[in-house]
Amino acid sequence: MIKPSIPKGTRDFGPVVVRKRNYIFQTIRETFEVFGFQPLETPAMENLSTLTGKYGEEGDKLIFRILDNGEIFDRAREAKDNRELVNSITEKALRYDLTIPFARYVVMNQHELALPFKRYQMQPVWRGDRPAKGRYREFYQCDADVVGSNSLLNEVELLLIYDTVFTKLGMQGYELRINNRKILAALADLVGKPELLTDITISIDKLDKIGIDGVRKELQERGLTEGDIKIIENFLNIKGDNQSVLEQLRELFADSATGLRGIEELDFVLDSEYTSYNTTPILDLTLARGLNYYTGLIVEVKAPATVKMGSIGGGGRYDDLTGLFGLPGISGVGISFGVDRIYDVLEELNLFPETAQQSTRVLFLNLGLDSSIKAFSYVMQLRQKGIPAELYHESSKMDKQMKYADKRSIPFVAILGESELAENSISIKDLKNGKQEKISLDALLHYAF
Amino acid sequence: MIKPSIPKGTRDFGPVVVRKRNYIFQTIRETFEVFGFQPLETPAMENLSTLTGKYGEEGDKLIFRILDNGEIFDRAREAKDNRELVNSITEKALRYDLTIPFARYVVMNQHELALPFKRYQMQPVWRGDRPAKGRYREFYQCDADVVGSNSLLNEVELLLIYDTVFTKLGMQGYELRINNRKILAALADLVGKPELLTDITISIDKLDKIGIDGVRKELQERGLTEGDIKIIENFLNIKGDNQSVLEQLRELFADSATGLRGIEELDFVLDSEYTSYNTTPILDLTLARGLNYYTGLIVEVKAPATVKMGSIGGGGRYDDLTGLFGLPGISGVGISFGVDRIYDVLEELNLFPETAQQSTRVLFLNLGLDSSIKAFSYVMQLRQKGIPAELYHESSKMDKQMKYADKRSIPFVAILGESELAENSISIKDLKNGKQEKISLDALLHYAF
Repeated sequence: MIKPSIPKGTRDFGPVVVRKRNYIFQTIRETFEVFGFQPLETPAMENLSTLTGKYGEEGDKLIFRILDNGEIFDRAREAKDNRELVNSITEKALRYDLTIPFARYVVMNQHELALPFKRYQMQPVWRGDRPAKGRYREFYQCDADVVGSNSLLNEVELLLIYDTVFTKLGMQGYELRINNRKILAALADLVGKPELLTDITISIDKLDKIGIDGVRKELQERGLTEGDIKIIENFLNIKGDNQSVLEQLRELFADSATGLRGIEELDFVLDSEYTSYNTTPILDLTLARGLNYYTGLIVEVKAPATVKMGSIGGGGRYDDLTGLFGLPGISGVGISFGVDRIYDVLEELNLFPETAQQSTRVLFLNLGLDSSIKAFSYVMQLRQKGIPAELYHESSKMDKQMKYADKRSIPFVAILGESELAENSISIKDLKNGKQEKISLDALLHYAF
Repeated sequence: MIKPSIPKGTRDFGPVVVRKRNYIFQTIRETFEVFGFQPLETPAMENLSTLTGKYGEEGDKLIFRILDNGEIFDRAREAKDNRELVNSITEKALRYDLTIPFARYVVMNQHELALPFKRYQMQPVWRGDRPAKGRYREFYQCDADVVGSNSLLNEVELLLIYDTVFTKLGMQGYELRINNRKILAALADLVGKPELLTDITISIDKLDKIGIDGVRKELQERGLTEGDIKIIENFLNIKGDNQSVLEQLRELFADSATGLRGIEELDFVLDSEYTSYNTTPILDLTLARGLNYYTGLIVEVKAPATVKMGSIGGGGRYDDLTGLFGLPGISGVGISFGVDRIYDVLEELNLFPETAQQSTRVLFLNLGLDSSIKAFSYVMQLRQKGIPAELYHESSKMDKQMKYADKRSIPFVAILGESELAENSISIKDLKNGKQEKISLDALLHYAF
């Protein structure tokens, strides 16, 4: 008999962890809902044709494919190489993100959907990445997107969702960093090499990791001259509060229609007459974000500096996502929550509320037939009031029963011993402070468990 | 461009359906929680060795396997037949049920778990069955199990969970049918062919579908004589209320220790001093349940007779589930909810409450900059009170905005027109009855949306 195990990069979530994770999911879900976003769930499996070619060459390799059921031997034998083989014996694969299935759903249901369609989706995705600390092969994504609207109000709302969720979670010192891809496009124009926009973006995106010297080197390798790099460096050096940065940008991009539009969009979002934020977003010109489908606002949430965690969320506006599936001209904007990292941050800052860690509130000891029958009737009454309660399953030694309560972190124990039965009372022991009190049975149902 | 689609046997769940499904999940989860059950989540993928050989030969064929990532060409070329090929290129597979992963989890965590471990699990499973009406390749299971306790109190509690959930869901006329495998074992003994217990069980299990003549025929084919079949038929003909059936069984199995234990167990559960049920379980001797690992109580929930749906839940007591993974001697008992069918029953009986169908309660029309800025501040205040509210994303024609509210089934529309702005009031239109009223802005936050 080999010792049972689970595939590397996957995790079991036991009761304590599930409860804490559900607290995060529930906080995010509630917020999505009050903002008018609607839930969507798509199948774990998609047709291969839906997924391949959507995540770059590297992504294609990381997609988990489902082997076709039934006879595949002959098909496999005819394949000339690995690629042909793999394609001939698989027609389905596991969801790699939530964005592509969402786009596929919108296209399939375009005639029924009321646009703008504001959807949220919280489901696991699977990627064949090499597992590492904080990188799993199965993990949840939590996305909210709006498709079918160019209004910048959506950007404001999505930033407010971040603001609301992290406020609710009690997280302080996190940062909402924003930028606009139009500004980066204007920068590429300014350099005179619009065709290198993606190269410039990818290089800037690494600033955090490789520092300015690293970025300089990478820009060189990607074909930019010393003069070009000087311009980019000057841009990256623009500092100050949001309004002062916007001022400097207005000067720099005075002649760029694209640049000015980007500035206008940032101004609308940052200094919105519509609302104010608990945590004001920070305009960060070094924010670039790797994905190349963004075309407007980009946003990234940074964990509080005290915990070294990096990004705990991000998103942006993209054009034409559904074009991939034959429905062009639909713009979208979306954000995502990094639940695994948010979990680690809350854990490290000790921010999980006690309610997120509660299971059974009171264990009734099982002290034989008469006592336990009476106890069970009270257990059921407490349950009807929504209070999780249990009767120990058998009349074992007191010691064993108390150990169970302890191991399960049940805060109270209820005892219906002979004296209690005689006087219609019940003893309640608070396991945190060890104090025990006798109350009347009538008082039990109103006890503050 | 080919039309996008999803794999057969899978489903997208749009907003309306997700909300209704969540209502069912939430009702079940709340009940599990107050009964002291704890949540567990296991990965979608398991090692093949965890799954194969656990669901019979047929089951093995229906497991969805994950193709190993990377180069598999050489491995594939060396395989002699389909079986070898499939095994050489896959090492992981999708969860087929929740029971085996649960057993695997218990064994892996045996030293940390407080026994009895009462866990619930609500996750999708995948099976390569031929898709048909009501049969999907991806569907949710909702299980609650207790391992590590032989106490019949667990049986009582699990029946109470069914009782509580279906009562909460407002379902009337459903039936909780129970039987005990020990009785069926005693029957096989009575026939004198204990080795044919499984054959007898499988045949009886089909009574609903193939009728008594069918069962008779099948029993014959499985090697039972006319005399044997007569005994079984007499057994199946035992009728009456629970106590009268128990009486007749006591007579029939007077000499069978196993039979008497089964009767005692049924008596404990049916006529429990511990509790009473909203819907009293019915002792049904024709209930057999296919799975052969049950050893004690078996239970099945039948949908109300008015909807032709059959079983909407089932379970039973089993011995030695974790023995498969090297931890023998741990008994368990569990139940399962058939969420897809429960959904159909609630739909057909119109039992989904309105709260399970609500999304945004009020849409503020977008009537230009000044109005919409003011409107948005009220939208945010309503959201803070937990009321889902939206501002239409742009100031389009009234008509278009109203159509959006209608398509989204938003019940109220709020209008801040010029006259309302001038008098600090707001008009609320109830889209169900078409009535419109003007209220003060102060009253807005207390309006019954």
